[in-house]
Amino acid sequence: MIRLELLVELNYAIDQNGADFIFNIHAAHTPAQTLSGESLRLSQDIVPRIHTDAATGNRSMSLHAGPGQLKVSYMATVDLAHYRADPAQLAEVPVSSLPPDVISYLYPSRYCQSDRFIKLAISEFGQLRHGYSRVQAIRDWVNKRVTFTPNTSNSNTSAVDTIIEEVGVCRDFAHLMIALSRALSIPARFATGTDYGADPALGRPDFHAYVEVYLGERWYIFDPSGTVIPMGLVRFGTGRDAADVAIATIFGGVIGQAPIIRAVAQEDGSRDIVLPRHCMEALSTDHGGAAMAAI
Amino acid sequence: MIRLELLVELNYAIDQNGADFIFNIHAAHTPAQTLSGESLRLSQDIVPRIHTDAATGNRSMSLHAGPGQLKVSYMATVDLAHYRADPAQLAEVPVSSLPPDVISYLYPSRYCQSDRFIKLAISEFGQLRHGYSRVQAIRDWVNKRVTFTPNTSNSNTSAVDTIIEEVGVCRDFAHLMIALSRALSIPARFATGTDYGADPALGRPDFHAYVEVYLGERWYIFDPSGTVIPMGLVRFGTGRDAADVAIATIFGGVIGQAPIIRAVAQEDGSRDIVLPRHCMEALSTDHGGAAMAAI
Amino acid sequence: MIRLELLVELNYAIDQNGADFIFNIHAAHTPAQTLSGESLRLSQDIVPRIHTDAATGNRSMSLHAGPGQLKVSYMATVDLAHYRADPAQLAEVPVSSLPPDVISYLYPSRYCQSDRFIKLAISEFGQLRHGYSRVQAIRDWVNKRVTFTPNTSNSNTSAVDTIIEEVGVCRDFAHLMIALSRALSIPARFATGTDYGADPALGRPDFHAYVEVYLGERWYIFDPSGTVIPMGLVRFGTGRDAADVAIATIFGGVIGQAPIIRAVAQEDGSRDIVLPRHCMEALSTDHGGAAMAAI
Amino acid sequence: MIRLELLVELNYAIDQNGADFIFNIHAAHTPAQTLSGESLRLSQDIVPRIHTDAATGNRSMSLHAGPGQLKVSYMATVDLAHYRADPAQLAEVPVSSLPPDVISYLYPSRYCQSDRFIKLAISEFGQLRHGYSRVQAIRDWVNKRVTFTPNTSNSNTSAVDTIIEEVGVCRDFAHLMIALSRALSIPARFATGTDYGADPALGRPDFHAYVEVYLGERWYIFDPSGTVIPMGLVRFGTGRDAADVAIATIFGGVIGQAPIIRAVAQEDGSRDIVLPRHCMEALSTDHGGAAMAAI
Repeated sequence: MIRLELLVELNYAIDQNGADFIFNIHAAHTPAQTLSGESLRLSQDIVPRIHTDAATGNRSMSLHAGPGQLKVSYMATVDLAHYRADPAQLAEVPVSSLPPDVISYLYPSRYCQSDRFIKLAISEFGQLRHGYSRVQAIRDWVNKRVTFTPNTSNSNTSAVDTIIEEVGVCRDFAHLMIALSRALSIPARFATGTDYGADPALGRPDFHAYVEVYLGERWYIFDPSGTVIPMGLVRFGTGRDAADVAIATIFGGVIGQAPIIRAVAQEDGSRDIVLPRHCMEALSTDHGGAAMAAI
Repeated sequence: MIRLELLVELNYAIDQNGADFIFNIHAAHTPAQTLSGESLRLSQDIVPRIHTDAATGNRSMSLHAGPGQLKVSYMATVDLAHYRADPAQLAEVPVSSLPPDVISYLYPSRYCQSDRFIKLAISEFGQLRHGYSRVQAIRDWVNKRVTFTPNTSNSNTSAVDTIIEEVGVCRDFAHLMIALSRALSIPARFATGTDYGADPALGRPDFHAYVEVYLGERWYIFDPSGTVIPMGLVRFGTGRDAADVAIATIFGGVIGQAPIIRAVAQEDGSRDIVLPRHCMEALSTDHGGAAMAAI
Repeated sequence: MIRLELLVELNYAIDQNGADFIFNIHAAHTPAQTLSGESLRLSQDIVPRIHTDAATGNRSMSLHAGPGQLKVSYMATVDLAHYRADPAQLAEVPVSSLPPDVISYLYPSRYCQSDRFIKLAISEFGQLRHGYSRVQAIRDWVNKRVTFTPNTSNSNTSAVDTIIEEVGVCRDFAHLMIALSRALSIPARFATGTDYGADPALGRPDFHAYVEVYLGERWYIFDPSGTVIPMGLVRFGTGRDAADVAIATIFGGVIGQAPIIRAVAQEDGSRDIVLPRHCMEALSTDHGGAAMAAI
Repeated sequence: MIRLELLVELNYAIDQNGADFIFNIHAAHTPAQTLSGESLRLSQDIVPRIHTDAATGNRSMSLHAGPGQLKVSYMATVDLAHYRADPAQLAEVPVSSLPPDVISYLYPSRYCQSDRFIKLAISEFGQLRHGYSRVQAIRDWVNKRVTFTPNTSNSNTSAVDTIIEEVGVCRDFAHLMIALSRALSIPARFATGTDYGADPALGRPDFHAYVEVYLGERWYIFDPSGTVIPMGLVRFGTGRDAADVAIATIFGGVIGQAPIIRAVAQEDGSRDIVLPRHCMEALSTDHGGAAMAAI
């Protein structure tokens, strides 16, 4: 089991009109990702609405904050007992057999215009053996072709830009991998959370964006940016792309500061708590199709 | 009450590998749109999977068809008892009060890049009184600015193109209106169905795309293209934009023919069945928020 | 020597306001492309202005036509005595040694956004030996990657679209090859004219778009579409991209008919007139740098 | 007469391969803009090539610099004796009467996709009386609609982006005004130089981008950004758009520092040298059509 002590602290200055916020900073609830402790503190005296989505386990928080400062502090002890699978056993699922709530992850979205990539995806990956290894080939292709370069992309940058300019940050790697996967009729979605194991040269601990692909009967983790140890990723939200699960979607006149993030893995041999490490198995924090109704 | 006799006939030639299809051609199930009769015929001996989405009432059909011809015939008798409201009573809903399943219709999508329109939308509509009349002003602005012109747009055309080029078909009008609405934090979604009342000069009866906007406590119909009588629209699917509710999303080597569509309104004074007509009230085929759990 | 009998016939219906036209349908004047006969007929009694550009040899014709029909018939006997070079001898020219009037063909243009392709071009071609063979590698890459498919592109389609969607017509192949060349600091320009040797399955004789690249001390012909016999290309105009040398740029309310084009190669052994054929030499219809002043 | 003392200082660190540069930092040579003194210093011992373009008066400098530091210092005493005209007398020129070397400024370019703006431009400006006042209306429309906001645009931002997002810097204002003008068949080009009279709150003296429009028989100055006193603009280069007349186009591995710029207007009543001021007349630093041959 993996255990991470998580801290997220966000600070905003809100203008005289107040502002609405939708946050995606809670660790998702899934059978494989559970919480042994959690606390949320808001510096304003407001009661947020927290909604858990049954299909994804996302917990989004919406609130209206008044003028002045808003500080949001979230702490959690997150336990990860990944579902692990042998990549060789993970098949792509024919469209006509996909669960209904997975279908929408085949469709193009704001930042993943998969409809435009069909010919390219088939040229590059159409001849490969279907299954996990093909998805891994897409991941490797994106990882090799795109160079991680801060400040080369912005909130308008999409897969169409990244495939041409070949630079970006984790979000851009994720969007391109998603677009290529969907172009091959493989459901793929965008996941956000905290990074783990990133080279300190890339900067302070930060939020991370990665990819989940539906294979066999659940969603598996891929990190096309190649910057983290996937086993140490805490999942906040999953969605079609970055538009759906922004850390904070803000409606109003707000100035934000750089977030403070900490994700520290625990180690305790006596309780079988180990550090995240690179591994060859396929990892999922998702419940399988059958478990869904039970949530 | 409105009653329409609906016929949709689709014909495809499928190559030797067969193909997967996802169709959105069933009339949606909502309290205000019910069916007194329905039949589906497929020329191949296959059992489709039909999934009804609880939140929207969409009924999507997925199937795998073998090589050769596929003919899909759908007939339905659709009864519409619109929820009607006084536009003056319909308020915009603050983000922090929106139902969770409405939130995602605030976010930008493949064809509705609302994140890029915020300044423009505020310049044009920011000073208007909030509520139904503001949404109507957006609808009128799009209707006036864009010229309905067949064959000027394609499957890659998005709101960003339409606002510059100012031409398009019903789908393009809808995408632009949705993008502008979302840019003002007003939830808006894309709806497909059959048209009614369109000028024969625009061509044979066809599918239609229009807009639903969330006001008060439900989704109301707007037709930015101005080509139809909204009261006569049968709703198939609703989604983020055209990517979500294509009439047919096809995976495989398939050649399609032009669809055959017929939507004939019945009239029977003895049973209070009247013809669709233009009206000043706000119309919805949606259940309200409270009714949702009951579906 | 190559000799082609050329006919271009264009027909327009002009509305009551009349219209301005700029045509690029005259065979360019260069030392290697000369005319032994030429005639132009206009169905309206107007005197066109024909301007020969000293740097390129382009001859553009501008005129104002009145309401009604306009028929433009151009016939020419075009003699091509290509400058031929051994590809192995053709070097890329350092930017600081380029003639001033070649410099602008390094810059991005409407349809060739070379500034966005720099990393991609260096990844794909940066390690290749500089010179004609590298340009040939770019040509082959474009030819292999893009599939010639009528009706997949339009007047807004640019290199950025073609590299993603990988389909197009001759103009799109040309734009992509130009963008990639410029991204490597190799001057490249767009050329229009008539095709020759195209497979009749691609349709009737038509205008053709191809590429000229500056190597050694002049512009050499490349055909990334791979549809023609380059030796049989008559050159009309050259420019930054298709925006500069449209067959007809029209200002006004005009409906055009499909053009009629004929380019028939002559053969006369006694006068050393041979048919165009594929060859391994580099071909140019351009005068070299030194000759420029003499035009 | 206006006299400005100009200083431009550029500093680069060049990697071990050396680099090619094309600079546009020399004051253009025109009858209305002359130099009573000029000096150029390069910190490396290299002889640059300086080319004066006959049609525009642009003086571009190309050079190859070795590894290490490169400092470019340019100083000039620039005298401006603007050609002045009564705006009411300045007509738009029919396409068929435009001088040949003006025609290319009707065509779309990298950052000014005028082909996409035709309907919008006609909707907004088509009914206005033709002439200088219509161009002024375009200038005012852009000035009002777009908000000057540093760091909202980048080297990929074009008129298509600016019309949607409505933010940018002087370059973006210029591109949008050019695109709209060309969409109405009015030749327009991009000009660079030094600003004058800008509000110090916008930052230190900087390069400036503005617009020249062809009316009557020459190019007149417009400043859609509204940040400067046009009479004090020193013109470096003019081109299709920013791609053509970058201050420095760099080919190689180079890191640049922020430029140092100073443009100080002199005042000397005894010699009739006055300070730039806002005025109602149309201003041009261009020679007229007739003078062109004489350059």
